[in-house]
Amino acid sequence: MIIELKSTITAENAENLAIESKAFHIKYNDKRYLIAGSGVKEVPANLIDFAHNHWVFSNDLQLASSKFLPTKREVKIGNVTIGGDTKNTVIIGGPCSVESEEQIVTSAKFIKSLGLNLLRGGCYKPRTSPYSFQGLGLDGLKLLAKMRDDYGLTVITEARDATHIQEIIEYSDVIQVGAKAMYDQGILRACAKTQKPVLIKRGFGTTLQEFVQAAEFVLAGGNPNVILCERGIRTFETGTRFTLDLCGVSWLKEHTNLPIILDPSHAMGYAYGVADLARACVAMGIDGLLIEAHPDPSVAKSDASQQLNHDQFETLISSLKPVASSVGYNII
Amino acid sequence: MIIELKSTITAENAENLAIESKAFHIKYNDKRYLIAGSGVKEVPANLIDFAHNHWVFSNDLQLASSKFLPTKREVKIGNVTIGGDTKNTVIIGGPCSVESEEQIVTSAKFIKSLGLNLLRGGCYKPRTSPYSFQGLGLDGLKLLAKMRDDYGLTVITEARDATHIQEIIEYSDVIQVGAKAMYDQGILRACAKTQKPVLIKRGFGTTLQEFVQAAEFVLAGGNPNVILCERGIRTFETGTRFTLDLCGVSWLKEHTNLPIILDPSHAMGYAYGVADLARACVAMGIDGLLIEAHPDPSVAKSDASQQLNHDQFETLISSLKPVASSVGYNII
Amino acid sequence: MIIELKSTITAENAENLAIESKAFHIKYNDKRYLIAGSGVKEVPANLIDFAHNHWVFSNDLQLASSKFLPTKREVKIGNVTIGGDTKNTVIIGGPCSVESEEQIVTSAKFIKSLGLNLLRGGCYKPRTSPYSFQGLGLDGLKLLAKMRDDYGLTVITEARDATHIQEIIEYSDVIQVGAKAMYDQGILRACAKTQKPVLIKRGFGTTLQEFVQAAEFVLAGGNPNVILCERGIRTFETGTRFTLDLCGVSWLKEHTNLPIILDPSHAMGYAYGVADLARACVAMGIDGLLIEAHPDPSVAKSDASQQLNHDQFETLISSLKPVASSVGYNII
Amino acid sequence: MIIELKSTITAENAENLAIESKAFHIKYNDKRYLIAGSGVKEVPANLIDFAHNHWVFSNDLQLASSKFLPTKREVKIGNVTIGGDTKNTVIIGGPCSVESEEQIVTSAKFIKSLGLNLLRGGCYKPRTSPYSFQGLGLDGLKLLAKMRDDYGLTVITEARDATHIQEIIEYSDVIQVGAKAMYDQGILRACAKTQKPVLIKRGFGTTLQEFVQAAEFVLAGGNPNVILCERGIRTFETGTRFTLDLCGVSWLKEHTNLPIILDPSHAMGYAYGVADLARACVAMGIDGLLIEAHPDPSVAKSDASQQLNHDQFETLISSLKPVASSVGYNII
Repeated sequence: MIIELKSTITAENAENLAIESKAFHIKYNDKRYLIAGSGVKEVPANLIDFAHNHWVFSNDLQLASSKFLPTKREVKIGNVTIGGDTKNTVIIGGPCSVESEEQIVTSAKFIKSLGLNLLRGGCYKPRTSPYSFQGLGLDGLKLLAKMRDDYGLTVITEARDATHIQEIIEYSDVIQVGAKAMYDQGILRACAKTQKPVLIKRGFGTTLQEFVQAAEFVLAGGNPNVILCERGIRTFETGTRFTLDLCGVSWLKEHTNLPIILDPSHAMGYAYGVADLARACVAMGIDGLLIEAHPDPSVAKSDASQQLNHDQFETLISSLKPVASSVGYNII
Repeated sequence: MIIELKSTITAENAENLAIESKAFHIKYNDKRYLIAGSGVKEVPANLIDFAHNHWVFSNDLQLASSKFLPTKREVKIGNVTIGGDTKNTVIIGGPCSVESEEQIVTSAKFIKSLGLNLLRGGCYKPRTSPYSFQGLGLDGLKLLAKMRDDYGLTVITEARDATHIQEIIEYSDVIQVGAKAMYDQGILRACAKTQKPVLIKRGFGTTLQEFVQAAEFVLAGGNPNVILCERGIRTFETGTRFTLDLCGVSWLKEHTNLPIILDPSHAMGYAYGVADLARACVAMGIDGLLIEAHPDPSVAKSDASQQLNHDQFETLISSLKPVASSVGYNII
Repeated sequence: MIIELKSTITAENAENLAIESKAFHIKYNDKRYLIAGSGVKEVPANLIDFAHNHWVFSNDLQLASSKFLPTKREVKIGNVTIGGDTKNTVIIGGPCSVESEEQIVTSAKFIKSLGLNLLRGGCYKPRTSPYSFQGLGLDGLKLLAKMRDDYGLTVITEARDATHIQEIIEYSDVIQVGAKAMYDQGILRACAKTQKPVLIKRGFGTTLQEFVQAAEFVLAGGNPNVILCERGIRTFETGTRFTLDLCGVSWLKEHTNLPIILDPSHAMGYAYGVADLARACVAMGIDGLLIEAHPDPSVAKSDASQQLNHDQFETLISSLKPVASSVGYNII
Repeated sequence: MIIELKSTITAENAENLAIESKAFHIKYNDKRYLIAGSGVKEVPANLIDFAHNHWVFSNDLQLASSKFLPTKREVKIGNVTIGGDTKNTVIIGGPCSVESEEQIVTSAKFIKSLGLNLLRGGCYKPRTSPYSFQGLGLDGLKLLAKMRDDYGLTVITEARDATHIQEIIEYSDVIQVGAKAMYDQGILRACAKTQKPVLIKRGFGTTLQEFVQAAEFVLAGGNPNVILCERGIRTFETGTRFTLDLCGVSWLKEHTNLPIILDPSHAMGYAYGVADLARACVAMGIDGLLIEAHPDPSVAKSDASQQLNHDQFETLISSLKPVASSVGYNII
């Protein structure tokens, strides 16, 4: 249940009521709310006098629900805004991993040259095997920050586990919570305490309901700037790396109020399918696209098979514009 | 292995060689071929003198493989053609089931009024429960045939099992092999003996490899007019009815030479997501779209929740044209 | 809804009531029942005077439901009986395919020598690829029938599609409906018209609910002798061929009244795991086990990797007896 | 590749060689090994003089592989030992969550009264929703430690994320890495630096290969005491909570050298199936069983539906002994 408190209630009052009721207290758009679990079906007696409005839910998809906020939330990412009425589809490009200064500078210049704004690059790689490249860590974060300073790009990188989440929050403009880390409460609770945008990737074995519940951890903890990212689920089909769940995207658009970004690169796992899938995603009317591109994919230290080279990436971006336009959206 | 026979070999010779070698014999584009399984890696001694060319395969995706025919096959459906260089995306519309003359006449007039050419409607419903509506059977087939005669539409309906496949072949312009029937060799072998187009739906538990192997049954048996239809696979996600596998569509486009039609209605299972998904499908550059529409979905005898009403369908078709155009395709 | 008719109602009366009510009419244990879909929640007005008892259901699992018959049904297979209070775990052994008279005679003698009663062997193979061995067909059926006559064994073989179901019903003692054919209404309706036992295998993409609904087709059509067979479902895990669903077996034991046989060979796909899995199955207290064994698996024409040789099979059967005994069951 | 170093190599030498070769260095059973990724197929030139023996692998399952150590590893858990030649099946019982001193004392006394040795109880619950009970945290850990001191039990509890892994290592006798945390390198690296046994649960969307690779993180980091726990994977079947993958257990027994414990409670999700499944698990010849039991499941703060009450648990344990005995194992 979400209870909107009367406008006369102070922050301190609200916090005390929250503690008393074992509820979360958040402020959103100048209004204060208490949020309890979906088990609570009636306004508790001790809160009746303070409640201005309330919403009852059948499950724990609450703050993210389109029943609570029927219009999509707006989230500002660096100089651009997505969601709300913006009709913007933002492109996040760059390599799977930050591998060297030369590689990331080449990538940054390239993204900039296409008139795009967001640069991605992994620093702490959530590799399945201990014998694979694990990322440059803090050195990678510093390189990304340098790209922001030198090229005016907004940078985004991924937290692998809770041990380095504070570094990520410090250096990155957008905090990416990876598919393997999205149940990690150490990460989610830290993300709730910043106001930086948080992009949560769906786990490959995660239901839509659980996926949005991960967002609820961040929203209920006080950070309204949450973006969902669908990147493919694991199914019986192994001809492709994962299965991009666009039916799920329709579900998210219907049932939630959060901006949605799609990652066709990881879903497909092979460069040959990325362009077709990217166009399919854009035609759905989405808030953004995450596409891996590497100056030379053949030498990439991770996900070599799915990264586009720069020519392929540039051709793809050109082809996306008329598709976006055909559904009333803008590629930015 | 596929062996192209020398042009001097007669039909009778070829048939004898096929029997001798336990291989299939087909004629395609005025050439004769023998097809053995992928286990055969070298031209057998008894065939060397007759072979003009040959292809070796690592699996039993052979006649459907883009390694055998690198360009997409063209298939004629009534008055329209898909595949090849046509850049046509054909729309197949109509109700889930043929329920009555009034319902199917309304549907036929509607499809015609939009300038579309293909009318679908189930007559033998592959229902999971014996207690559900099972379709009008032969009466339904006759109604469909009447729509062809009265409105000049091309009609398509589904075979549920081998007991009525001859009726379907007689009355329907396109033979649809349903998701639950696509392993049915009684159906596939009958489809191989006609030259009518055969649309094979992917089983919801079927790998891409197995899906194309079902097409091989029809191709190797002598009917080159095969169309693949992706309609969603069964995954752990139950928020939507199935999961439309567009990564799989990329795989099919890369690895096969068959036209591909998509069915977002069955995949989604809910009308609210069908339009977004249909636009996504069209943006991939596909050969057709199968969309369920009913004059009044609320009283439909099957799949009530996923069928569009006629207003929704008309709006959808209008919105598909600019999307198709943005990727160089035409909605027909 | 299931309605038990008063004992005074004749067969003819019952049939007329069924037609009038668009319901199924069956006789079971000397009582007559009408069965309508789960949508019917109250005894219809025209049937009130004839109803002795009735059961309401929330889904179309009705005749198979433990809510209708709380005790497990007994099914006679040749000379042995399973289900009910018998505590029998019957072993069905034999090769994947009948390949030759020599091979099936060797198999029959072997099964007999172990004191077992049931011989399996495929004649119409539901192969995924047209280029694989498709079975001996009617010749295979005749060989199986000869084994019954010569060795007193009960034989079981599989229907691939509806075109040869009458042959199977004529020659085989138990009709096996394969995993790829279990939605085939041509087969299911034919099985409903015989009184021979029908063993229905779960499709690898089939939910438990749908699986039991296939059994409802046979039960509602008049044949009470239905056995369920779990043989592994398709999941993201490809280290093994399928995933044997023993949680599903617990569900079936709780929610249905049908005997349950397990097939660890197809689930595992590799001989090395079959014995451990077979012991696990038996420890659940089940009605039977289907194990593939071949005189020489290395030359088997289908499923070579998962068939046990005769030594392995004999060792396995010996090891199953104490396990069955530890849970109060008998291997027969 | 794993390289066994000559016995004359000192710890310091080995460490230097490891750094020089970007490899891991471990000591196991008085021998020193260097471990590089599976990409390395030949002993590098700089190591040839120091190599006594070596193993080449086709994937990154190396230290855990039965190709490296063909016999199962032995792991000591408190006073008991599993794996190796022990033929012990250890029972780990107790509530899903530690909820109060009274509840855990009742549980501890109960486990003790049955002659069992291991008590489980969650303190940091990896709940999907922020609105559910999150566990008692450090207070819970202290209660568990008290149970060890007061009743001589070995205690096991789960790390949810890396923020509290040091507390878990300090208070718990066995470190459980939960299904949602098994990719968490913050946790895995910490586990590698202790010598306490680490029980890694398979993620519900995790392949067998990835599952064992998580174990490789701990093994390669220096802790040989790793136990695998299969607890059900997520499939399309939703009639049960998850699908217990016993085919996967056969695969693990064949391909790895690690002890294996099974958790039928989480897999099934319903108390009614737990006993049958537990007997199935034991009949496979496994190293342990994890069963949730609660003094009063109806008031449990988490997983209420799947926990057994104490009577059910006691009956189950009695029934497991003859099953274990029938396959040559002992319940301890």
